[in-house]
Amino acid sequence: MNSKKNFAVVLAGSGVYDGSEIHEATLALYSISKNGGSYQIFAPNVNQHHVINHITGKEMPETRNVLVEAARIARGNIKDLKEFSADEFDAILFPGGFGVAKNLCSFAFSGADCQVNPDVESAIKAMHKAKKPIGALCIAPALIAKVLGEVEVTIGHDEGTAEAISKMGATHVATTHGEIVFDKENKIVTTPCYMLDATIAQIGDGADNVVKTIMAL
Amino acid sequence: MNSKKNFAVVLAGSGVYDGSEIHEATLALYSISKNGGSYQIFAPNVNQHHVINHITGKEMPETRNVLVEAARIARGNIKDLKEFSADEFDAILFPGGFGVAKNLCSFAFSGADCQVNPDVESAIKAMHKAKKPIGALCIAPALIAKVLGEVEVTIGHDEGTAEAISKMGATHVATTHGEIVFDKENKIVTTPCYMLDATIAQIGDGADNVVKTIMAL
Repeated sequence: MNSKKNFAVVLAGSGVYDGSEIHEATLALYSISKNGGSYQIFAPNVNQHHVINHITGKEMPETRNVLVEAARIARGNIKDLKEFSADEFDAILFPGGFGVAKNLCSFAFSGADCQVNPDVESAIKAMHKAKKPIGALCIAPALIAKVLGEVEVTIGHDEGTAEAISKMGATHVATTHGEIVFDKENKIVTTPCYMLDATIAQIGDGADNVVKTIMAL
Repeated sequence: MNSKKNFAVVLAGSGVYDGSEIHEATLALYSISKNGGSYQIFAPNVNQHHVINHITGKEMPETRNVLVEAARIARGNIKDLKEFSADEFDAILFPGGFGVAKNLCSFAFSGADCQVNPDVESAIKAMHKAKKPIGALCIAPALIAKVLGEVEVTIGHDEGTAEAISKMGATHVATTHGEIVFDKENKIVTTPCYMLDATIAQIGDGADNVVKTIMAL
């Protein structure tokens, strides 16, 4: 296992309902660090689609910026995704959370017909072109499917999402807790995380399996 | 090890500079889950002292509520600390972050002379009276020292903070990464976490050592 890999980790805010899922993001960083790797965190410098009160589930009359909020998970050590260069990294990783489907692309609203943030699209395409591994947790595999088309991914076994993934030209493989799907040809590693009703220990397993699979490449 | 222990985890918001440190909170929950325990997350229903932009470190002209923001880490599954009852839990745990010293008490501004949120004070005193274990990470041991006085804790080796802890009647023991101080008489387990310049893997070690020590009681 090449544990010296340098990961770019792309966040979508901070909080499951309008940003990055905090446990998935943190446990992905933990796994990279624990297994000897390094990381730089990125996020696009755009406003969140909206701000959700995480107790009531209702929209709050506020505006928050994806990069500024993601900096909470990054402890301030974060870069604008515009600064990302595929040359500098061995792998790119997308934790999940609704922010992926609301801020990085519009999958939450438009499904298979969604738009993707141009910086996000460029980063994914550049890593794929360079034949470098791409990891994606939870709903993030839908974003990868939208950008790359003919790839094999998992989001667990949610039928509606799996159908949308097929409609975008990708193949969905059903999985359960901690399992990964590894598309060897495209070097894409995905796992369902909180797309299933999971414990935080199971999120740790899923994130760790994705990171270790990427490190072994 | 009694891995069936039910933990109350008390948060102070979401983000190191104005709330709970996200890695410490998440990795404490992860350790509880991984080792077979269960948890309920709490936070006081009060406004944050202020809101900090985690990129610039500057104050933002906003008001955020500690309970509502902490719900981001809790994925919405959180209770007002007013609802806490010591009867229902085997242990209580405080992750760190400046929010502990700004929202749960005023240690960041007043040091040894700080005020403590009444719900936070009641919860700590009730658990101590019931002879149930108390865990605290990072700066949170200063809060425990303020409330309980003659206890033994660690925040690593920051001299100013260690002096303030002594001034509050407690004993400070210097530690490094992942090490804990276990005050057996008072059942208090503490570890420095990000009070040191640590990696996220080291945060996981510290949180795990605190949780496992509490589970063994």
